[in-house]
Amino acid sequence: MSGEEEAAAQQQKTEEQKQDTKPEEDKQNEQQPPPAQEAEKPQNEVSYKSLVLSGYGGYDKVKLQVKKGELVPKTGEVLVRVKACGLNFADLMGRQGLYDRLPSPPVTPGMECSGIVEALGEGVTDRKLGDKVIVMNRAGMWQEVVTVLTSHTFLMPEGMTFEEAAAIPVNYITAYMMLFDFGNLRPNQSILIHMAAGGVGIAATQLCQTVKDVTIFGTSSASKHDAIKENGVTHTIDYRTMDYVDEIRKLSPKGVDIVLDPLGGSDTCKAFNLLKPMGKLIAYGAANLLTGQKKNLMALAKTWWNQFSINAMQLLQSNKAVCGYHLGYLDEEMELVGGVLSKILDLYKQGKIKPRVDSVWPFQQVGDAMRQMQERKNIGKVILVPEAEKEEKKEEN
Amino acid sequence: MSGEEEAAAQQQKTEEQKQDTKPEEDKQNEQQPPPAQEAEKPQNEVSYKSLVLSGYGGYDKVKLQVKKGELVPKTGEVLVRVKACGLNFADLMGRQGLYDRLPSPPVTPGMECSGIVEALGEGVTDRKLGDKVIVMNRAGMWQEVVTVLTSHTFLMPEGMTFEEAAAIPVNYITAYMMLFDFGNLRPNQSILIHMAAGGVGIAATQLCQTVKDVTIFGTSSASKHDAIKENGVTHTIDYRTMDYVDEIRKLSPKGVDIVLDPLGGSDTCKAFNLLKPMGKLIAYGAANLLTGQKKNLMALAKTWWNQFSINAMQLLQSNKAVCGYHLGYLDEEMELVGGVLSKILDLYKQGKIKPRVDSVWPFQQVGDAMRQMQERKNIGKVILVPEAEKEEKKEEN
Repeated sequence: MSGEEEAAAQQQKTEEQKQDTKPEEDKQNEQQPPPAQEAEKPQNEVSYKSLVLSGYGGYDKVKLQVKKGELVPKTGEVLVRVKACGLNFADLMGRQGLYDRLPSPPVTPGMECSGIVEALGEGVTDRKLGDKVIVMNRAGMWQEVVTVLTSHTFLMPEGMTFEEAAAIPVNYITAYMMLFDFGNLRPNQSILIHMAAGGVGIAATQLCQTVKDVTIFGTSSASKHDAIKENGVTHTIDYRTMDYVDEIRKLSPKGVDIVLDPLGGSDTCKAFNLLKPMGKLIAYGAANLLTGQKKNLMALAKTWWNQFSINAMQLLQSNKAVCGYHLGYLDEEMELVGGVLSKILDLYKQGKIKPRVDSVWPFQQVGDAMRQMQERKNIGKVILVPEAEKEEKKEEN
Repeated sequence: MSGEEEAAAQQQKTEEQKQDTKPEEDKQNEQQPPPAQEAEKPQNEVSYKSLVLSGYGGYDKVKLQVKKGELVPKTGEVLVRVKACGLNFADLMGRQGLYDRLPSPPVTPGMECSGIVEALGEGVTDRKLGDKVIVMNRAGMWQEVVTVLTSHTFLMPEGMTFEEAAAIPVNYITAYMMLFDFGNLRPNQSILIHMAAGGVGIAATQLCQTVKDVTIFGTSSASKHDAIKENGVTHTIDYRTMDYVDEIRKLSPKGVDIVLDPLGGSDTCKAFNLLKPMGKLIAYGAANLLTGQKKNLMALAKTWWNQFSINAMQLLQSNKAVCGYHLGYLDEEMELVGGVLSKILDLYKQGKIKPRVDSVWPFQQVGDAMRQMQERKNIGKVILVPEAEKEEKKEEN
């Protein structure tokens, strides 16, 4: 993640084929053999599939394009053939023009992917051809091949699938830093995890279990309760039919030690009030803004109007912490973030965490993939893959 | 600390001698042998010295009185003969009517003291006569003898003086919970400690050194720099002649990981801006309000006007935490607070912390003691003692 300039440069260094292919035409494209010649002739023009956000709006604004151009890793960079990409809430927000870290359209979204190193830029000694890597970047990862700084790549542990690898960075780093940096989670504490079946929810639930005797209140729709319970949630709450505040107060009258808040608006105020003394509210999203395919001005106004706000004097007397977290704004902090990812990969190797992949979608079905997540149908991570044949929609659920 | 009711009850159960003695008369009183008969005849009327806040205002509003009445520990309580009391910023704020946890005047202030157990209430088995104890309470500790619940008393470690014991609870618990609960202080981090020569400043500086390689920026007036450096501050800053933000940026361009903010007003905003990504601002006071003996409406207005305020969306994009801490509002949490004090006493036994007593003042000089602290002349803790003979003003400095 190296700033807006890099993302813009990446846009410019390829000549895009602007004839956006419709889904039907895409399928035809997919049936052609994938172009496998890039590595042999990196100095020559290659063509590769790329998902491009053409403008802000609904699901159809992200289009599959075939780009042509030279893809040569620069000094310190590697070229990675992408095998799987992660879909995140920030991508959904970005599509609606609600995420200012995504460069302006036309732009290729995508903050994470996994793949195989196919070419090395000058001076690269810490990666070799054939390395399987996890990649993080500010944007641009929803593409068949990408060039990135090696500092943005991390070796995949033995036995990890590409789908798992693409499911890890954003969700697990977010959950880890919230729980163990801001949250300072300790034994015998209690936590409220909203959207416990979402990517961050699944990750946070698993990470909580690396600490002794943590009580986890998790919200999701009732149909997902078995899944989140199996993942480690202590008390499941159906937020659609129950008042989650009442449910928690019944079981824990004093409230909870930590609330992870991906919702925003009035839910942030509820979270603050639910905290025990020395409790920590960690806001990390505004999912309440996402009520439909396109930007909803009523939802924006309502969320803004109900927005949590606090001053120093109120805070002082509360003995509480309010924290804001968004990995997208940490793109200058790769050393910090990379250190966290190393710890997460260690936990994976020890069998303490295991990403749950909800479903895998080929690039040309990116609209369906986004709908799956935006309509809260997923349990775990929604994954995109460049290849058409990998159409194993919704493994579980 | 058992609520306003208890404090009020304690006020009522003694008949106060309302003839406030002037300092000259006090000295005469002091020269009389101290009344030592209470323990033998606890059912009878005893008389004891008490500092009483008669109304909000300047230093002269806290008056030495001799109270008469029965002082009998109730079930679960002990009677403690007080040897030393701590003076805190909350007491100074309370005198001006700026601290809502102090019951209304007339009231005896004082949140901490040390002394000897002289009588046991019914059912008390965890304390015995002659035990040397540290005592914490919402108010009422500036008195020659006090009755408190045993849960508010803590055995003094071997070798600890009464002055040290009275210097520990408020300052060290405050510093400990800020650093290790909200702050989550870890090796190689950096911190800004304002008022590094104050009670909390001295305690926080010592506690930081229980973690490896913490860089401490400490502010105080230049005359105290040797003392705070000796206490462990890495970089001293004279806030009266230098811009502390500039000084810190020179040495650490990215800012610091933690700011402890006892000042309020515009300094809280500066603190927030000084934080690195994932940094934590911990507000724990509003010393900027205290500009003179009496409530200063201009200072109140200025501090209020410049007050730090933040909403969820700003916080989200900042990757920062803002925390409010005030021990006075944790009076329902004796188990939590007591657990912290145990850890602090362990550190004392291991020689890792050592309270620094600035000066010891007899009750009748409470006005001078308050001035010492309010005019920022102290290095370390200002202590009050009931006995007149203990007039060792300003041990060091």
